Amino acid sequence: MTDSLDLVNLSISEAAAALRKGEATSVALTEATLARIDQTEPTLQAYATIPASRALAAAAQADRELAAGRDRGPLHGIPIGVKDNCCTKGILTEVGSKVLAGFAPDYDATVVEKLYAAGAIIIGKTRCHEFSCGGSEPPTRTPWDLKRFPGGSSIGSGVALAARSAFGAIGTDTGGSIRIPASIENLVGMKATFGRVSAFGVVPLAWSLDHVGPLTRRARDNAFMLGAIAGHDPRDANSARVNVPDFTAGIDDGVRGLRLGIEREYFLYPGVTEAVRAATEAVISQLAELGAEIIEVSLPELAHTRETLITIRMVESASYHRELIREKGHLYSPGTRATLEIGQAVLGTQYVAALRARERFRAAIQALFRRENLAALVSPTIPVPAPLLSDVRKPRDDMDTGETPTDGFVHHVYPANLSGQPALSAPAGFTPEGLPIGYQLTGRPFDEATLYRIAYAYEQTQDWHERQPPLVYD
Amino acid sequence: MTDSLDLVNLSISEAAAALRKGEATSVALTEATLARIDQTEPTLQAYATIPASRALAAAAQADRELAAGRDRGPLHGIPIGVKDNCCTKGILTEVGSKVLAGFAPDYDATVVEKLYAAGAIIIGKTRCHEFSCGGSEPPTRTPWDLKRFPGGSSIGSGVALAARSAFGAIGTDTGGSIRIPASIENLVGMKATFGRVSAFGVVPLAWSLDHVGPLTRRARDNAFMLGAIAGHDPRDANSARVNVPDFTAGIDDGVRGLRLGIEREYFLYPGVTEAVRAATEAVISQLAELGAEIIEVSLPELAHTRETLITIRMVESASYHRELIREKGHLYSPGTRATLEIGQAVLGTQYVAALRARERFRAAIQALFRRENLAALVSPTIPVPAPLLSDVRKPRDDMDTGETPTDGFVHHVYPANLSGQPALSAPAGFTPEGLPIGYQLTGRPFDEATLYRIAYAYEQTQDWHERQPPLVYD
Repeated sequence: MTDSLDLVNLSISEAAAALRKGEATSVALTEATLARIDQTEPTLQAYATIPASRALAAAAQADRELAAGRDRGPLHGIPIGVKDNCCTKGILTEVGSKVLAGFAPDYDATVVEKLYAAGAIIIGKTRCHEFSCGGSEPPTRTPWDLKRFPGGSSIGSGVALAARSAFGAIGTDTGGSIRIPASIENLVGMKATFGRVSAFGVVPLAWSLDHVGPLTRRARDNAFMLGAIAGHDPRDANSARVNVPDFTAGIDDGVRGLRLGIEREYFLYPGVTEAVRAATEAVISQLAELGAEIIEVSLPELAHTRETLITIRMVESASYHRELIREKGHLYSPGTRATLEIGQAVLGTQYVAALRARERFRAAIQALFRRENLAALVSPTIPVPAPLLSDVRKPRDDMDTGETPTDGFVHHVYPANLSGQPALSAPAGFTPEGLPIGYQLTGRPFDEATLYRIAYAYEQTQDWHERQPPLVYD
Repeated sequence: MTDSLDLVNLSISEAAAALRKGEATSVALTEATLARIDQTEPTLQAYATIPASRALAAAAQADRELAAGRDRGPLHGIPIGVKDNCCTKGILTEVGSKVLAGFAPDYDATVVEKLYAAGAIIIGKTRCHEFSCGGSEPPTRTPWDLKRFPGGSSIGSGVALAARSAFGAIGTDTGGSIRIPASIENLVGMKATFGRVSAFGVVPLAWSLDHVGPLTRRARDNAFMLGAIAGHDPRDANSARVNVPDFTAGIDDGVRGLRLGIEREYFLYPGVTEAVRAATEAVISQLAELGAEIIEVSLPELAHTRETLITIRMVESASYHRELIREKGHLYSPGTRATLEIGQAVLGTQYVAALRARERFRAAIQALFRRENLAALVSPTIPVPAPLLSDVRKPRDDMDTGETPTDGFVHHVYPANLSGQPALSAPAGFTPEGLPIGYQLTGRPFDEATLYRIAYAYEQTQDWHERQPPLVYD
C-alpha cells in the first residue's frame, strides 16, 4: 500500500503536476483512491455510494485526453468526492434519508456538471446528515478519534479528505456545514459568497442560506476547486451575475498591508476553549508578523444572528419538506422530521422580521468592512475541538450557561451564512490531545481571492496540513 | 373663471409649450390650479394638504429659471399632486390616518425629490385610503357622480385630475391603486415595472408589491412624468439598475405589426359587464384596424393570482404595522386595523408558498410573452364602471357568485402587481350613463415605452380624454 498512500497523500496541485510530468496517471490516482477507500471505509464510512467502475472509466478518458493534449485544468483527472445532497445523473443521491432511498436523478447538479467539465473524477457520494440537518447521526467516523464527533453536515466530505480517500470534496453550508467539518478534520473549507456557486440540483435545506463549496487539504487546491465550480447559472434564481476570477492569482502576494479585523465580544465569547483561543491568537500574531495590520473592531449586531438564521432556516426547511412529510413522513428519522417540521409553526410576520433582521445585519457588517477597510475578519471556526460523540448534546462542564457543543458549533459560522459573505476555515493547529483546531476568515462579498491569499500566507508558515490522523487501519 | 379653466384644462404638453412660448407662466398655471382647487375642493376633497404659498414661490422660481434659460424639461413649472403616502419634507404626510396626524417628515421621498429636480410644482398632497388600504372611505368624491365610488387607494390623485385641480399626479399601486382610479376617472395611469420607480420614502403597504407611478389625462404626459421619476435608487433595495429611456421616443410610431394578446378565460370572465366588455372589444378592434396583430392566448396561471397576492400583501402589511399597532392601535380606523392585522395569523410556510407561487406565475407569463412575441396583453382595467358608494361592498345583482364590486376591482390589476410587469390603464369610452371605462395594457418588463406607444396610438383615434365630468360647481 505504500505507493498508493504516497499517491493519495498528494495535494491536488502535486497530483496535477505528477499527471503532467508523466509520474502518475488519473487511473493510478483513481485506483489508489479506491484502494484507500477499501482500506478506510469499513471503519470510517465516509461514502454513501462509490461508482468505482464509472470513476475508472472516467479516469481512463482523462488520461487519453491529457495524452492527446486536451488539458482541462488543475482538476483534470483528480478524484473528488461529492456530498450526497448534490444530484448526480444515474448515481444514487439519497441525502442520508430513507425518504430518498433508491433515488438516482436523471440530471446533474450544476456543481457536478462543472466538475465533469473540469475533468474531475467523481469518486463517490459523501455521506451527510439526513437532508443536511442534524436530526440523526450518520455512521461516519473521524480518523482523528473514532469516539469523537466528525463534524457535519458535510461529514463524509470532511472525513474522506482526512482519510486520504479523496483529493478534494464538495460540501454544502447552510449554517457552517462546510466549515465545521473543515475545522474538525484539519482541512480548508470555503463557503464562498452567496450566489457565487450555483445550488441548482442540490437538495435544499434553506434556499436563501444554502451555499455549495469545496473542502481540500491545502488553500491553493481549494482555490482551484472554487474556480472550477463558480459562475452564474440561470437555473438558480439566487445565482449572481459576477465574473469568476482566477482565485489563485496573487495567492502568494502575502498579507503585508492587509487590514484584518478582530472582534472579541462575540467571536471570543466565554464558550471558546483555551486551546482554541490560544490557536486563534497565534494565527493573528503570525499574520501580524507577516505584515498584516490587526484592527480591533466591534459589531454588536452579531448577537442576533443566531435567532435570525434559525427562524429563516426553519421556515424554508418546513416549506421545502411540507409535501414530502405529508407523503413520506414515516420515512424520516424522528429527530430530523421534528427539526424540519417545527418551522411550520412560525408566523409569516416572524419570518419577515427575520428577513429584515438579516438585511440590517448585512448592512451593519458591510458598513464595518467599508469603514475599517477590512480585508477579512479573523475568528475561531468553532469554539471547541471535536467533542466526544456522547457529549455532543450535553451541557458543557466548563460553562454554566447550559450550552452544548452542538449549540457552540454554529456560533462563529452563522454570521457569514446570514450576510452571504465568503468565509473560509483553515487549520490553526492542534489541542494538546492532538485534535485539530480551525480558524475562520470572513471576507468581502465576491472577494474570495483575498481569503485564499491570507490562508495561503499562513499555511506557508506552518505544517499543520501535513499532520496525519493517528488511526491505523488493519 | 373661464381663463383659469382654460389653463387647467391644458395637457402637460400644452402647458409646457405655453410656458415656452410666453403664453403662460408657472405662476399663472399655479394660481389657476389653486383657484380651481378653491372651487372644487369643498365638494370633492381630493387634497389632504395644499401648501399654496410654497407652490407659488416654487412657481415664481420656475419662471425665473425658464426666463434665465434653465429648462428642466416638460414638467418644469407644472403643478403636480402627490399622493399623501409619499414623504414630503416639511409638508404633512398623514396617509389618511390619525396614526400619522401631524406628521411632517424631515426628508423627501425619492419620487418627490425627482419631481422637484424636474421643476414640477408640488401643488398638494392628494388623499388616499388609510395607509393605502381599503378599510375605511375618505371623504373624497368624484365629479363624474358624487354618489359613486371614486376609485382608490390613489383616490385624490384621480379626482384631482378629473376635476382639473392638477396637471398630473403621483399615485401608488400595490393591487391596482393607480389603475383603478385611472379607469374610474377617465385617466391614463401607469404602474411601471417593479423597481423602475424608487419607493424610498413612500409609506409601504406591502413592499414587494408596491409601485409608485403617474396619473395624467393624456398618454404622452404620462410618459413625461414617468421619465422624470424613474431611475435606480440605492436607498430602495428593490430598485432596479436599469437605464431610463426617453419614454416618448417612438410614441407616435403606431402599432402596425405589434402583437397584442387577448386572454378571455380570466380577463373576460362573467363579472365583466356588457358595457366594459364592448368597450374592451372596441379598443381591440380599433388597434387591429391600426395594424396590430391580435393573438388569442391562454394563461391558466391567472386563476391563482388573487390568493397569492393577498397572502403576500397580508403578511407584509402586518409586518410593517405590527409595532405601530402595538403603540397606536386605537388610532387606526377599525376596518383598516383589521385588514392590516389579519396577516399576523398567516404562517411563514404559507407566505413562502405564496412567494413561490408568484415566481411560478412570473415564469409562466414571461414565457407566454416570449413564446407569442407579445408587445402587450389587452384587457379591461376593472370589470364594472364606478358603482354607487352604497353598493361597493354588496353582492352584485347581476351575478350569482356573491362577488361585490370591491372583489371585482382587483381581478384584472393584481396579475401585474404579482409579475412586476408594467401595466397601464387608459380611457376606453363611457357607459350609456356616461361613466368612464378604462382598458389595461400589460407589457414586457421595462418596456413601458411600448405601452405608451399603443395607448397613444389608440388615443389619437378617440376624444374620450376631452370629455369633462358633468359636475357643475356653485
